[in-house]
Amino acid sequence: MARTNRTQWAQLFELPEHAALSLQARLRLAIVQAVMDGRLSPGAALPSSRELARLLGLGRNTVTAAYEQLVDEQFLEARPRSGVFVHGRARAVAALEPPQAGRAPGERSDASDRAGRAPSWPTRVLRSLADQPTLSKPQRWRDYPFPFVYGQFDPELFPTEDFRACCVGSLARSQLKHWTPDFDNDDVPELIEQIRLRLLPKRGVFALAEEILITVGAQHSYHLLAEALFDGTTRVGLEEPGHPHARNTFSLRAPRFVPIDVDEQGLVVDTMPPVDYLFVTPSHQSPTTATLSLERRQWLLKRAELHDFVVIEDDYEAENLYEGSPMPALKSLDKSGRVIYIGSISKSLSPALRLGYIVAPRALIAELRRLRHAMVRHPSTFLQQAYALFLSLGHHESHARRVNNAMQERLAAVAQALRLDLPDFEFRVPQGGASVWVRAPAWVDASELGLIARRHGVLIEAGEVFFVQPPYPCPYFRLRLSSIQASQIPAGIRALALAVAELATARGEPRAPLPRPH
Amino acid sequence: MARTNRTQWAQLFELPEHAALSLQARLRLAIVQAVMDGRLSPGAALPSSRELARLLGLGRNTVTAAYEQLVDEQFLEARPRSGVFVHGRARAVAALEPPQAGRAPGERSDASDRAGRAPSWPTRVLRSLADQPTLSKPQRWRDYPFPFVYGQFDPELFPTEDFRACCVGSLARSQLKHWTPDFDNDDVPELIEQIRLRLLPKRGVFALAEEILITVGAQHSYHLLAEALFDGTTRVGLEEPGHPHARNTFSLRAPRFVPIDVDEQGLVVDTMPPVDYLFVTPSHQSPTTATLSLERRQWLLKRAELHDFVVIEDDYEAENLYEGSPMPALKSLDKSGRVIYIGSISKSLSPALRLGYIVAPRALIAELRRLRHAMVRHPSTFLQQAYALFLSLGHHESHARRVNNAMQERLAAVAQALRLDLPDFEFRVPQGGASVWVRAPAWVDASELGLIARRHGVLIEAGEVFFVQPPYPCPYFRLRLSSIQASQIPAGIRALALAVAELATARGEPRAPLPRPH
Repeated sequence: MARTNRTQWAQLFELPEHAALSLQARLRLAIVQAVMDGRLSPGAALPSSRELARLLGLGRNTVTAAYEQLVDEQFLEARPRSGVFVHGRARAVAALEPPQAGRAPGERSDASDRAGRAPSWPTRVLRSLADQPTLSKPQRWRDYPFPFVYGQFDPELFPTEDFRACCVGSLARSQLKHWTPDFDNDDVPELIEQIRLRLLPKRGVFALAEEILITVGAQHSYHLLAEALFDGTTRVGLEEPGHPHARNTFSLRAPRFVPIDVDEQGLVVDTMPPVDYLFVTPSHQSPTTATLSLERRQWLLKRAELHDFVVIEDDYEAENLYEGSPMPALKSLDKSGRVIYIGSISKSLSPALRLGYIVAPRALIAELRRLRHAMVRHPSTFLQQAYALFLSLGHHESHARRVNNAMQERLAAVAQALRLDLPDFEFRVPQGGASVWVRAPAWVDASELGLIARRHGVLIEAGEVFFVQPPYPCPYFRLRLSSIQASQIPAGIRALALAVAELATARGEPRAPLPRPH
Repeated sequence: MARTNRTQWAQLFELPEHAALSLQARLRLAIVQAVMDGRLSPGAALPSSRELARLLGLGRNTVTAAYEQLVDEQFLEARPRSGVFVHGRARAVAALEPPQAGRAPGERSDASDRAGRAPSWPTRVLRSLADQPTLSKPQRWRDYPFPFVYGQFDPELFPTEDFRACCVGSLARSQLKHWTPDFDNDDVPELIEQIRLRLLPKRGVFALAEEILITVGAQHSYHLLAEALFDGTTRVGLEEPGHPHARNTFSLRAPRFVPIDVDEQGLVVDTMPPVDYLFVTPSHQSPTTATLSLERRQWLLKRAELHDFVVIEDDYEAENLYEGSPMPALKSLDKSGRVIYIGSISKSLSPALRLGYIVAPRALIAELRRLRHAMVRHPSTFLQQAYALFLSLGHHESHARRVNNAMQERLAAVAQALRLDLPDFEFRVPQGGASVWVRAPAWVDASELGLIARRHGVLIEAGEVFFVQPPYPCPYFRLRLSSIQASQIPAGIRALALAVAELATARGEPRAPLPRPH
C-alpha cells in the first residue's frame, strides 16, 4: 500500500461531530462519505487498521470493527495479504441500500422492534390522492419511440441562450436588490408590469397591479382558489370531459362537482345546471381543443350575472394559435368582476420553471395573497426577476413563434397520418394548442388500446381520466405533440394502427388490413 | 410637427387584434401601449387626427374621439395651435389609474351598475387569514435606519458569482435534459443525492431517496403536512412562544392547538399535555433561540412512542451555529419513524430562491408527493438543478461560513449594546441563529414600544404574535440581525433606548437617564 502522510488521511476521514454516535459509527460514516463524494474511488487502498488507528488517534479495535462491518456490507473489500480496499461496487451498494434513518452505516436494526412502535400512517393520512384517477405515464416514458404525452419541449426549441442571459442579468450585483430581499407578500414589480402591459392586453384584459397575483404555475392557481372559495357545499361546474389536474386539486376541498357537456363550440352553456363556480378552458378546451364561440362567451357571462355564479377561466394554451385571430378572453368581456383569470407564463418556455398568475378583483387577490403566504410564502423572486427580463426583451414572443411553428408542423403530420392509417377514427384539426382529441370507433376502449400501444412503443393519453362520469367503453384518447418530433409522427401513428389491429383481432372485430408502409 | 413616414406610425400604432373592441378602443389601446413601453416619450408630438386617420386607414372621427378621451384622461395634451402631444405625466397617470378590467383605456364605466352585479367576495371567501396575527413590518421597511427584522441578507454576503456560475452551468445545452422535462412527481435526482449525502449526514440523519421530498421552502412543508394530517379533531402541540408562520398555515385545517411551555433548555417535555402531533424547533427554538437539550430530546422521543404522537421537527437555523458542537437532529435519534424532519436549503442563501425538503417514512412521502402535485405540480426543477450544482461544488458550506461570521459579529454587537443602553432588559446570547429574544421590564408592552421605536427609526418584532395565548402586557420582543450591519447596531440599540425612555415618561415610570453617547 502506498504510504500516505498523516494530514491527508486525517483530513479525508475527519470524524463528524456527533454527540449521539459512537466513535466507531462516526468513523464508518466518514469512510462512507469519502467514497460517496468521490474523494475515495472504488478500488482505492485504505491504510491498515493499525496505521489508521495511529493516524486518527483511535483505538485499533475501533478501526477494526468499523472495517469489518463495512466489509460485511460489501462497502469495503479485504484482499488476503494485500489489505483493505474500497469495494469495486461500493457506490452502487450505498445508493441501493443506504442506512436506515436513525442508524449509522452498518449499524444493525431490529426491524420487528422498529415496526412495532411506528405510527400507523394509513390511519393518520386524512387526505390522500392515492385513489384519484390522474394522467400518468410510465416512469421511463422517454425510452418509448412514440411518446404522444406531455413532457419536455424539444431542446432545439428551448431558448437556452436567451434565458441564460436573463439569469445572468438578474444575478448582476446591481440587480440583487430587486429580488434578494424577503418579499414576504409582494411580487417582483417588473414582472407584474410585464404581465399587465405586455401579456394581458393581447388577451383584451386590462388590470391593475393589485388585481394580479403571481403563482407557482397554473396548478398552484387552482389550489389557491379552491382553498379560498370551496367547501363541501360548493357546486363547482366542470367541463365534461375536462382537466383532471384541476379536478383533483379542487377535490381536496370536497366540493360537489357538476359535469357540463362540451361540444365542438366548447362548453354547452344553454343546458348547464346551477353552479356556484364554473371552471372553463375557453381558448382551447382541455382536452377537446374546441374554442368557445364568441356568442357562447357572451351568453355565459350573462348567465353568470343572472344566476350569480363566478367563472374561473383557465386561459389554457391561448398563445398557441396557428389559424384565425384569437378570441378575446372571457375576462376581457367581463363587466361585473365575475371572471377569475388564470394565466401561465412559463408553460410555453418550460414547465420546469413554474410561474403563473391570477387576475381577479382586488378584494379577492388580497385574500389569495395571504393564503399564498401561508402555502409557499411567495414564488421564487429570482425566477420572477429573470422572467420579467425575458419578457421585457421580447424573447417570450419569439420563443412562442418558434414553438407554434413546430406544433403546427406536428399537427399537420398527425392529421395526415391519422387519415391515412386510422381512417375510421374521428378528430378535428384544432386551430391551436398542442394536442389532438380522437374518437375511436365505438368498440374500442382507449384504456385497453393504450396498454397494447405501449407494447408497440406508443404512449397515448386514454380519455377516461378526463371525465367525472366516464363512459364505458371510453373510445376517446388524446395525442399530445410536445414531446415527439414531426418526423417521428407517421411511424408513431402507424404503430398505433398496428395496436388497433391487434385489439380488433382480440375482440373479433372485422378490420381492413393496413395499407403498406408509406 | 415633424413629418413622419407612413410605415413608422402604422407600425407604432398597429391596432391590436380584438374582436370585442371597437376600432376607437383599439386605437386608444395602441397609443397607451406605445407610451407605456417607452416607444413614445412624454412630450412627443402625435400626428394630427386627419393625418393619422389617413395613415392608418381609419375614419377621422374615430381618431378624434380617441384623442379626445385620452386628452380627457390627461394621457395626451392638446396645445392650442400646436397639436396633440403625449402628456408630460402620461406614464404616471397610466400607472396610477389604469383602465378597469373589461374596459379599454378611456372607456367610461358605470360604477353603480358594475357594483350592483358584482359577486359578494366577503361571503364567498370561506377561508381568510385576514384576521390572523402575523409577523409584519412596514412596506418601506428598508427606509428605516435600524431594521431589526427579517429581510435581505447583506448583498456583500450573497455569493453572486458562485450562484451565477451554477445557473449558467445548469443552462448549458448538455444539462437541459436533466431539468427541462416535465418531472410530474419526481425531483431532480442530483439534488436529492446532495441532501442525502451532504446535508443530512451533518445532522446525523441517514435517509433513502424515497424518504425525501423537495418543497417550495419550509412554509410549503408546513402546508403539505397540515393538508395530509390535520383536521378539526387533531391536537397539535405548539411551542409557546412559537413560530407564527407555522401556526397560521396549520390553522387552515383548523386543528386544536395545544400550547407547550418553553424555557432556556427549549420545550418543557415533562409537563406536556396529550397531543397527536408536536411541532418543534429544537436547533434554535423560534423565537427564543434556546437549544433543546440532549436529555430532553431523548425523553421527548420516548414519550412520543409511549403516547403515540408524531414529532414535526423544523431544523430551523441548524447551520447557523457559532459555539459548541451541533446537537444531533431529533430525526437522527428516531428509532421508530416518528419524526418528520423539515429542512431548508435556500434560507441561508436567500429566501428568494424558495427550496426546502421533508424527510419522513416513505409511506408518508408518497402521500405528500401526490398532494404536492395537486398544489404546485413540483418545485422549479431549474432551481433544483442549479442548487444541486451549488451544493456539489461546496459553495453552500463556504457561504454558510461567511454568513455565520457576519451573524456572530452582529450578535456580539447587539449583546454589548443591550448591556450598555438597556441594562434592565434580559436576554441570553444564543449559540447560533440570527436573532436575540429580549424580555423588557414588566411595565413595558412591546407592541406599544415597537410603535414608538418606529418613530426613532427602529423596527423590532413585538412578541405578542408568537404566542397562542399572549400575556398582556407582553414584555417580549425579538431583534433579528439578518438585515442590519454590525456597525449600525450600537446606534440602533441607542435609538431603541430613547424609545424606551419616551414610553417610560408617557407611563410615569421612573427611569435612569441614558449615559452619554459612546
